[in-house]
Amino acid sequence: MNAEIIAVGSELLLGQITNTNARYISSQLAELGVNVYYHTVVGDNAERLKQAIELAESRADLIIFSGGLGPTKDDLTKETIAKHLGTELIMDQTAMLSIEAFFQRVNRPMTENNKKQALVLDGCKVLANHNGMAPGMFYSHDQHIYILLPGPPKEMEPMFQFEAKPLLASTLNHGEIIVSQVLRFYGIGEAELETQIMDLLETQTNPTIAPLASDGEVTLRVTAKTSSEEEAWRLIHETEQLLLSRVGDYLYGYNDESLASSTTKLLIEQGLTISVAESLTAGLFQSELAAIPGVSQTLVGGVVTYTADSKMNQLGVSKEIIEQYGVVSEECATAMATRVKTMFKTNIGVALTGVAGPGEHDHQPAGTVWIAIILPNDEVVTHELHLSDMRNTNRLRAVKRTFHYLIQLLST
Amino acid sequence: MNAEIIAVGSELLLGQITNTNARYISSQLAELGVNVYYHTVVGDNAERLKQAIELAESRADLIIFSGGLGPTKDDLTKETIAKHLGTELIMDQTAMLSIEAFFQRVNRPMTENNKKQALVLDGCKVLANHNGMAPGMFYSHDQHIYILLPGPPKEMEPMFQFEAKPLLASTLNHGEIIVSQVLRFYGIGEAELETQIMDLLETQTNPTIAPLASDGEVTLRVTAKTSSEEEAWRLIHETEQLLLSRVGDYLYGYNDESLASSTTKLLIEQGLTISVAESLTAGLFQSELAAIPGVSQTLVGGVVTYTADSKMNQLGVSKEIIEQYGVVSEECATAMATRVKTMFKTNIGVALTGVAGPGEHDHQPAGTVWIAIILPNDEVVTHELHLSDMRNTNRLRAVKRTFHYLIQLLST
Repeated sequence: MNAEIIAVGSELLLGQITNTNARYISSQLAELGVNVYYHTVVGDNAERLKQAIELAESRADLIIFSGGLGPTKDDLTKETIAKHLGTELIMDQTAMLSIEAFFQRVNRPMTENNKKQALVLDGCKVLANHNGMAPGMFYSHDQHIYILLPGPPKEMEPMFQFEAKPLLASTLNHGEIIVSQVLRFYGIGEAELETQIMDLLETQTNPTIAPLASDGEVTLRVTAKTSSEEEAWRLIHETEQLLLSRVGDYLYGYNDESLASSTTKLLIEQGLTISVAESLTAGLFQSELAAIPGVSQTLVGGVVTYTADSKMNQLGVSKEIIEQYGVVSEECATAMATRVKTMFKTNIGVALTGVAGPGEHDHQPAGTVWIAIILPNDEVVTHELHLSDMRNTNRLRAVKRTFHYLIQLLST
Repeated sequence: MNAEIIAVGSELLLGQITNTNARYISSQLAELGVNVYYHTVVGDNAERLKQAIELAESRADLIIFSGGLGPTKDDLTKETIAKHLGTELIMDQTAMLSIEAFFQRVNRPMTENNKKQALVLDGCKVLANHNGMAPGMFYSHDQHIYILLPGPPKEMEPMFQFEAKPLLASTLNHGEIIVSQVLRFYGIGEAELETQIMDLLETQTNPTIAPLASDGEVTLRVTAKTSSEEEAWRLIHETEQLLLSRVGDYLYGYNDESLASSTTKLLIEQGLTISVAESLTAGLFQSELAAIPGVSQTLVGGVVTYTADSKMNQLGVSKEIIEQYGVVSEECATAMATRVKTMFKTNIGVALTGVAGPGEHDHQPAGTVWIAIILPNDEVVTHELHLSDMRNTNRLRAVKRTFHYLIQLLST
């Protein structure tokens, strides 16, 4: 089976947004072993969309659309497909109820054009949208499969993964099972990691090993194709052991885990509470923790002390430390972490202070960061970072590094 | 003139990287008034690339390629175009010297396949690459213009902007100027906003009005095409006035502004300092503020009180309030905001407390949020929200709403 992905939306052609959907869907199809030969982007124009559909039908078995399912009159994906295939659009009651429930929940009036979103292709399998209003569709017609997905990634991605992908997988079922597992690494560059496992990358055929880098993290996706799930996992674990014997020091988690979720998991498992004092990151570390459900078992709270005065007044960092060493120093970070641990009566206290940039601050160049971690036995661990001159990259990197230090400390 | 953008690379079709080049080039072409009707992505396959070129020739005047100019044997963009157009590839001496200089600079041996990168289409204008090795090309042939650009964004973007765009602009020069401005709205849904301005959307031709929604925000892009910049701005302001007479209550900014940057701008302009007490958002509000350079003029700091105990111990919220009204209540939010304002000695105190979800908490359903804002004159403003059962959507929405309330309070 081969596929073409058509993203619909003039905002893409105007360069207002990036077509991240094509990447997401492609990576998911790669897992299923479906070849993608083309991505196409077309605007909110019925005639050009129709031409794109005809072209895709001539060269692909599976055509996946994203976008153009919204309530407004320039949303015309399903209308154009219905007309092209000679199919009716019918009202889907489940979708209608869920749209009505949405408006009740947010306490906003529902307008007439929102009802349009509950219309689906007659005879399709409706894909539920748990993160928005427009339902998706899975429609087989004349040797082709058409999958219609909403444009916003936070609606499209879960719908593809949990609704469309299982349907596709069962359609594809050749008696072969594909299982994959992602290993997540931090603290090692992509080139260096690849060098360490080059011989495995070059010789492995089943499971395959696919590296990918983003935002300072590197992942390896290990994919086995075989006749039973048991056998697939046996192959995966065998390869995993080989990989970890080379680069296991940098492993922090699997699959959808993140540095924040791995940290939270370790803290909860070990029954430890945590509090945080933040300067340059200004709440980002705590907020990333709080994104993980269940974190209230470990995160008690913390303080954001953005100014030197607030470090003294709220955390009780001494004037001497600030005058002698500055706010970006090992001494200040240690004092902040010690004080926040005491104030919030937690097992662990963490502090981040530094220069986000782009300019310098307190005689330190942008990207200078001090991190202090006070362990349950009051042992102090500190780290100095020298990052870039990019404000928000620095803030995010400082947070990720801190998670990584905590994972290392809690794993030993 | 209308254009098609063809990105070449199997890594795009495998979902390993996102096609950000198409967005960048599209936004640049929009500034020049060139219509883009299609984006195409095709793999490192000569036959399918040739088909994509023929298709693009049938529907576009300008064809822009990115990717496939590298040294390896799967880089075949210029080879395929040369063969298709019956043109020779010749060695460009300037490009060759610059490749040799690059290898001297990084002190690495130059391999034979790197020389391939200095080959260009005979008769093209060579586009210098100041950030990598592969030169770009601007080639006119039989009513079409072909622009070949390297794939890596940090090479492609400056090459497009400083080399290709001026050549295109001089080719296009019809004496017509295009100016556009984005109006940013919050607190109104896309469908409702469109309903309010439907007649304008349907009748406007110059300027055009293009709506776009994402993450609870709606934007309108107003684009004028005319003979002078002055006239373009006159037309834009005229349309802007019409739009604002309908939906001006929801406007919060222009172009690249965000809710956080508009809030920061207003706070700094009015010489006001701010502190924040956060529960469900756990630092996200402060972190979003801290992403804006210059925010240290207004953000002093704040407290994250994730547990009921920390609300009492760190902020001094009374046990009575928590027992009688609960932690998710107007009374608790008001006490938190009042206390943080006093502790941090700021002009404004803000508090957010609520149930992030997915489950209920303290007898309140997921998505219940109380926001309190204490103004410089100690006036108290509170809002109750009923959001969804999606944890991180709720946290982000609560933060955005709070920014919006602050913008409204500071603008009146």
